[in-house]
Amino acid sequence: MTIQLYCFGESGNAYKAALALELSGLDWEPVKVDFFAGAARTPEYRTQVNKMGEVPVMVDGDIRLTQSGVIQDYVSEKSGKFGGKDAGERREILRWVLWDNHKLSSTAGVTRFLMHFLSKDKRPQEVIAFNQGRLKAAYTILNDHLADRSWIVGDSITNADISCCGYLYYPESFGFDRADWPNIDAWLTRISDTPGWQHPYDLMPGSPADRA
Amino acid sequence: MTIQLYCFGESGNAYKAALALELSGLDWEPVKVDFFAGAARTPEYRTQVNKMGEVPVMVDGDIRLTQSGVIQDYVSEKSGKFGGKDAGERREILRWVLWDNHKLSSTAGVTRFLMHFLSKDKRPQEVIAFNQGRLKAAYTILNDHLADRSWIVGDSITNADISCCGYLYYPESFGFDRADWPNIDAWLTRISDTPGWQHPYDLMPGSPADRA
Repeated sequence: MTIQLYCFGESGNAYKAALALELSGLDWEPVKVDFFAGAARTPEYRTQVNKMGEVPVMVDGDIRLTQSGVIQDYVSEKSGKFGGKDAGERREILRWVLWDNHKLSSTAGVTRFLMHFLSKDKRPQEVIAFNQGRLKAAYTILNDHLADRSWIVGDSITNADISCCGYLYYPESFGFDRADWPNIDAWLTRISDTPGWQHPYDLMPGSPADRA
Repeated sequence: MTIQLYCFGESGNAYKAALALELSGLDWEPVKVDFFAGAARTPEYRTQVNKMGEVPVMVDGDIRLTQSGVIQDYVSEKSGKFGGKDAGERREILRWVLWDNHKLSSTAGVTRFLMHFLSKDKRPQEVIAFNQGRLKAAYTILNDHLADRSWIVGDSITNADISCCGYLYYPESFGFDRADWPNIDAWLTRISDTPGWQHPYDLMPGSPADRA
């Protein structure tokens, strides 16, 4: 049975799930959610797909999961990959996935949306500046952590890496320039050198080019 | 061996860990971090306690954990409580813990900080208003979810409840009034009726009264 992932290219949160599925080698296919046409906000989507009104949503037979971190957890259980070698690594991965949800991807996603996908006259400059300040603190923590290691946890790619990189390959600027953060830059190259890696706009349907 | 939790009363994220420890019946004690004097931002704290510069941090012998969701996971493993009955419940709990980190506690914590703990001349009104709009969307999701159930997952209190309530008992207003959200209100009463429950300012050292 082919796993289905409800997603769209612009969502870094969906990318975290799509990348885990793709790199794991599991059989999966994307189902495009036309987010910018409001598809995730309809009563039907909330009732039938996800009451949180979000992507990604993964369907594997009778199992329906939401939240990228939960889908990653499921992919790890099913494939045996990216979940860490022992209880200590498993907790350390969860630590970084939670940190990413709390401090990095959550803020990056909102800030990119406000700067690029909201109409120009509605962009709240004070909010954007505030978020960029918080993002800078997050980049500092990640860049420092990667100073003396190749991967966030252990000695190979895990869900911690797949989570934290969620928004960092997008071309739309939101206050992140790889050149400013050399350890993050090298780590992003390491991830994109992983066999099977694809850019979010290639791995999932939908990109700003569709609306240009 | 008594588990130590680095925390302070004003932190709803620390409260999530402290409440899980207290309700589990494990032997623990708080270690006050004087956050408002900058204690969590010193190089010593970052080197010796938590490189993320955050609370809570839990120490149990040789095990040192950060991120409230990781500490909750550890408490569940050690006590057998709050972690769900099976794999399905476990994932559903993780889903809500991640949602809370992404959408609820993260924004509530920042907004309350900006409105009450930042000096009055520095409070960014546009950011506060923006965050309150996002919080309202989060309260709606939680209130709707609780319309026909007593607990967020399954039929008893779990880490999902202990996570999502993190900032909702504080007296300082940040755009949340229990009277506006009847299902959340009843659920908060259900949690606070749980034997052993304590308010964050009673369970952990430090409160705004100390600085009045």
